[in-house]
Amino acid sequence: MRILVAQSGGPTAVINASLVGAVKRARELGHEIFGGIYGIEGVLKDKVIPLLQSELELEKISHTPGAFLGSCRFVLPEFGAEEYDVLFKVFEARKIDAFLYIGGNDSMDSVAKIYLEAQRRHFPMLVIGIPKTIDNDLVETDHCPGFASAAKFLNIVASEFVIDSIAYSEPSISVVETMGRDTGWLAASLKLSERLVKGLKTLIYLPEKPTSDEEILSDVQRFKDGPLLVVVSEGTVDEKGNYLKSTPVLDSFGHPKLGGVGEHVASLLEKIGKVKLVNPGFVQRAASHIVSGVDFQEAQMVASFAVDSVDDGKSGFFVAIDREKKNYLSTAKLVPISKVANKVKKVPQELLDNDMRGFVEYIEPLVDGLPDFLVR
Amino acid sequence: MRILVAQSGGPTAVINASLVGAVKRARELGHEIFGGIYGIEGVLKDKVIPLLQSELELEKISHTPGAFLGSCRFVLPEFGAEEYDVLFKVFEARKIDAFLYIGGNDSMDSVAKIYLEAQRRHFPMLVIGIPKTIDNDLVETDHCPGFASAAKFLNIVASEFVIDSIAYSEPSISVVETMGRDTGWLAASLKLSERLVKGLKTLIYLPEKPTSDEEILSDVQRFKDGPLLVVVSEGTVDEKGNYLKSTPVLDSFGHPKLGGVGEHVASLLEKIGKVKLVNPGFVQRAASHIVSGVDFQEAQMVASFAVDSVDDGKSGFFVAIDREKKNYLSTAKLVPISKVANKVKKVPQELLDNDMRGFVEYIEPLVDGLPDFLVR
Repeated sequence: MRILVAQSGGPTAVINASLVGAVKRARELGHEIFGGIYGIEGVLKDKVIPLLQSELELEKISHTPGAFLGSCRFVLPEFGAEEYDVLFKVFEARKIDAFLYIGGNDSMDSVAKIYLEAQRRHFPMLVIGIPKTIDNDLVETDHCPGFASAAKFLNIVASEFVIDSIAYSEPSISVVETMGRDTGWLAASLKLSERLVKGLKTLIYLPEKPTSDEEILSDVQRFKDGPLLVVVSEGTVDEKGNYLKSTPVLDSFGHPKLGGVGEHVASLLEKIGKVKLVNPGFVQRAASHIVSGVDFQEAQMVASFAVDSVDDGKSGFFVAIDREKKNYLSTAKLVPISKVANKVKKVPQELLDNDMRGFVEYIEPLVDGLPDFLVR
Repeated sequence: MRILVAQSGGPTAVINASLVGAVKRARELGHEIFGGIYGIEGVLKDKVIPLLQSELELEKISHTPGAFLGSCRFVLPEFGAEEYDVLFKVFEARKIDAFLYIGGNDSMDSVAKIYLEAQRRHFPMLVIGIPKTIDNDLVETDHCPGFASAAKFLNIVASEFVIDSIAYSEPSISVVETMGRDTGWLAASLKLSERLVKGLKTLIYLPEKPTSDEEILSDVQRFKDGPLLVVVSEGTVDEKGNYLKSTPVLDSFGHPKLGGVGEHVASLLEKIGKVKLVNPGFVQRAASHIVSGVDFQEAQMVASFAVDSVDDGKSGFFVAIDREKKNYLSTAKLVPISKVANKVKKVPQELLDNDMRGFVEYIEPLVDGLPDFLVR
């Protein structure tokens, strides 16, 4: 069997662990494996290479951030477009028997379209989607590879930042902005930092729970005398659904520029006290130096399972992660791709209730190797 | 002997390793050791506690960021001020035989003043300064504890960021702002990232080498087609000595707000291509999860040596680090405190010449445990 694998969307710290998981399993099963460069956008241009890396090289790749094969943000057009002729000509010329695509919700849309198009053309190629997103917003899976490592990095650096900020007799209010335009999984993950810093109170604002400047000011007033971490997802909105943000400011060319939510909240809180802001930005999805071991292992597992699935003749599926709650254990399973493409999983309210007890139970087994700080 | 130790200035990832080094050595030599809370500012208020932590607690403290005892930015007044009466009353009441102060250039000013004041008063207390600063700008020492760990964190996250940024077929120009208001040691340290990312070109702008928008634009034009990391120290200036920065922008209250150098350069480069900016901010000095082993060991060494020095009756000194170049080896030595207080060590031109070969030779042995990435 000739298997083609490609990567899509924003990279994560473990997207290459998935790639390596697929390569290793394909070799074990005696299949040939190829890589599409720059995702489906590159495959359309016939950018396909054999993956012949040594074991040592694979080991290094699995611990390298970014997308080793290159990525894209390309959305396939609707059925009937000429891109499909081009694409299937490549699949045919390259004699591809199975196509595996590692990505998030947009990429699963591509998987769904390619699967249907293959059926329509009676083209004998199997298609499977492999989950990847720090946003953790894919449906039908307990969680997504990439999320736990980003959450681990955020928890560690936010805790370090807070401990640094409270070193003075007049401590600062620490504000951290996290990624998460539509969902607040990453912002919510910072609840764990209360376990890392003695006495820390987190105030977490996320897209699922509209808020206002007034509410944030009043919350912070209540807790500003102890160690305090204010977390804002980049997608935090007000009751009208507008992103919380500063009034437009001008950049160096005099163009209006929108301040991010973190900057807005930091400015807001300067009314109350000294404020320090950290926005880890792209680093949070690329922090391969501090991946969660569980996440790394699961990223390999889902890709390996995808290879097993095509080896078994399966097509049109997405590999989801199931969780056995007691003594955390995760397994991979297949879900029809149509159930997953383009859908967004928000943080459910029940995980946020009761001071987020449900959320902490959910995330705790995913984020291993957290440090054991001792503050006075 | 009753030894008092305190911490001052901005925390580093290893300032607590120094504290623990002092506590352990004092115990080994049979001395009692006390901690001043919030630096000399707290000592003035008699905030002094015995340090009775267990071995396990000390171990945890040494890996915790921030200043365990609390810190301050307090500058002692000139001689004759009543603060000295208050301070020496505390030293007397607490029967302090030796005072150790962990800090940067400002803190070494306090050490110098307290030492002279003790002599003037014929007060039998020994005084030693212990180096600490991520800025690496203390004179008379090869380097400063805290610097290498900040440099290690910056190199790792900047490399991860660049690798993430070049995943797309149209890669972004990556811009990183580092701390360093007066000196460019941290910015220059990012030269090491060329070793972490194959084919990476770094363009580094630092206070020691005034630049201009035009120069930056022209440099970036030359290298924008390959992987490129643009590094700006927060203290980068133009030929007139003004910080490179955006024209004032308005914050959410309509107050003028100064864009940082990183933001300014990122806006500037948007003329040329896609730009991504990361400003690690306070995280770079607090990243205890990824300290350099050499730095951690040296932070303990200088503090341990300070205890040995007072045990030996020495006073009025600063503990400097000497380097044996061949097979990197570092040792501690005493330097009169007057030679160090308030002085700033800029990055010498010879380290910057020849594509920074000298700088790389200088920093390489200090930053251990860098990852081995593999990019396509």
